[in-house]
Amino acid sequence: MTAPRAETVAVLAGGVGAARFLNGLLRVRRPADVAAIVNVGDDFTLHGLHISPDLDTVTYTLAGQINPETGWGRAGETWRVLTELGRLGGQDWFMLGDLDLALHLFRTQRRSEGASLSQVTGEISASFGLELRLLPISDDPIQTRITPAEPADAPEIDFQDYFVAQRHGIAVRAVRFAGIETAQPAPGVLDSLDTAGVVVVAPSNPFVSIGPVVEVPGVRATLSRRRDSVVAVSPIVGGTSIKGPAGAMMRELGHEPSVVGIARLYAEFASTLVIDDSDRDLADAVADAGMTPVVTDTIMSSPERAAALARTTLDAVNGP
Amino acid sequence: MTAPRAETVAVLAGGVGAARFLNGLLRVRRPADVAAIVNVGDDFTLHGLHISPDLDTVTYTLAGQINPETGWGRAGETWRVLTELGRLGGQDWFMLGDLDLALHLFRTQRRSEGASLSQVTGEISASFGLELRLLPISDDPIQTRITPAEPADAPEIDFQDYFVAQRHGIAVRAVRFAGIETAQPAPGVLDSLDTAGVVVVAPSNPFVSIGPVVEVPGVRATLSRRRDSVVAVSPIVGGTSIKGPAGAMMRELGHEPSVVGIARLYAEFASTLVIDDSDRDLADAVADAGMTPVVTDTIMSSPERAAALARTTLDAVNGP
Repeated sequence: MTAPRAETVAVLAGGVGAARFLNGLLRVRRPADVAAIVNVGDDFTLHGLHISPDLDTVTYTLAGQINPETGWGRAGETWRVLTELGRLGGQDWFMLGDLDLALHLFRTQRRSEGASLSQVTGEISASFGLELRLLPISDDPIQTRITPAEPADAPEIDFQDYFVAQRHGIAVRAVRFAGIETAQPAPGVLDSLDTAGVVVVAPSNPFVSIGPVVEVPGVRATLSRRRDSVVAVSPIVGGTSIKGPAGAMMRELGHEPSVVGIARLYAEFASTLVIDDSDRDLADAVADAGMTPVVTDTIMSSPERAAALARTTLDAVNGP
Repeated sequence: MTAPRAETVAVLAGGVGAARFLNGLLRVRRPADVAAIVNVGDDFTLHGLHISPDLDTVTYTLAGQINPETGWGRAGETWRVLTELGRLGGQDWFMLGDLDLALHLFRTQRRSEGASLSQVTGEISASFGLELRLLPISDDPIQTRITPAEPADAPEIDFQDYFVAQRHGIAVRAVRFAGIETAQPAPGVLDSLDTAGVVVVAPSNPFVSIGPVVEVPGVRATLSRRRDSVVAVSPIVGGTSIKGPAGAMMRELGHEPSVVGIARLYAEFASTLVIDDSDRDLADAVADAGMTPVVTDTIMSSPERAAALARTTLDAVNGP
């Protein structure tokens, strides 16, 4: 195990929100000092291809190749394959562009050759010229499964069925991470979490993005041991999520849809919660829930504002 | 089992040559009366995708969507995915165009859902508006494996490694069809071969295209029982193959690279061999080898000439 290095940062990451935070962080820290530890609970197989939505969103964003309008997929993307697939009567509900497909072909072929997901992720990261350390939380399959609230006997569905096919428009009764009990942290994950000067929980969905990261055996305990230098950025602003279903899921799963609800979820393993100016009134309640509140502008409407948020986040546990 | 119907034709088919023959045949017979029974020994998995080169070449040709310059792949094809895959350092030696990829995605997804290859082939055929019956020889995996002649201890390689990656530029010591002993003919194959008025062995490579079709258990025996109405079109013209390595392989595997060599290979299960005008001098030797020679123009340089060849081929065993 390497000795802790104050300048290093490990970030627990989901997709779009985490990617934007990381993009800001790389403006205030050297890429070589940053490790992103990314959710793979959304990974799935379609058309025989291994698709890793969160890893890819982070990769495309940090490479400056993200579609700025959607926050996912490639800029300048084309849809030649998917259009033809639709004509053939194939499944075209998951938007796979031509450039994006190339990445899934690459990952799938390398996996079939015996490369682990973390090895392939390293290769892809290098292809895109990224200098941070990009790690899947695990090389083992973890599948986020959703139980709809209605009807009462609704069977579990795949995450992408919920998230994309149903556009997260249905209420959720339960979330489960199939396979997580036996999943091992990918090589480098626990070491990064042990030795980083600061660990950041990115502003991602606490259930379906951060959940499958923290619940991998060993991760929660590792974070808890160093709780004082673990800081989270709240994905909930003004009682709802900027993007995605986090706000709705908090209500549906019995949590207060606010920064206070987030504090209750994270207090065990993180000491500090960065909340938005608009939630200033809830700072005391966050403190009561066991986390030190830090109030700032958390809306990452530009890389510059994301960088400012990253700086404030690091300072919150590093000292000024 | 259906009663024989004189107007129906079953064609044992490989890729380019067979596709051109079928394209001619469909000008002289109703599509609904034609069954194409296609080699799957070239099928392989790359990038996680199930690729069926011969089935696809037949489909694209008969749909009028083949690339006329190469004889394989789609007309108007683009290479957006493959170009990006190359940039990522992926395997781009097998030319998968964007439109072509859509078909492989469709096939792979449907197979993962439990559809058999013959079911998917029927769906694809319908999507392309084909009215003939397009059948893989088997729904079970058959893998054509090549042993190079040099060095003496060269290990077996995959067919596509030989055919595409090495551009069939190496001499062959042996050809084997892994899995064929336990492969079952796909639904409809033996019935088509039993009931067709005529069975045609298309002008395809006798070893790596017709071989994996005829050697599926039950096929050779079925053909032999009705040998009098089985007619082959020689893929060898003037001592060599029009396209591909058939001529070279005949020499390398110890056969005379001529229509006489073809006659010796096919005489057991086919009564009649259509040979090119340029091989007229070998007609008696073909007869000596056990097949009735029919001499005509076999060069399918246009659909019209392919249609004329198809008509002559059918008449050779139907009577004029």
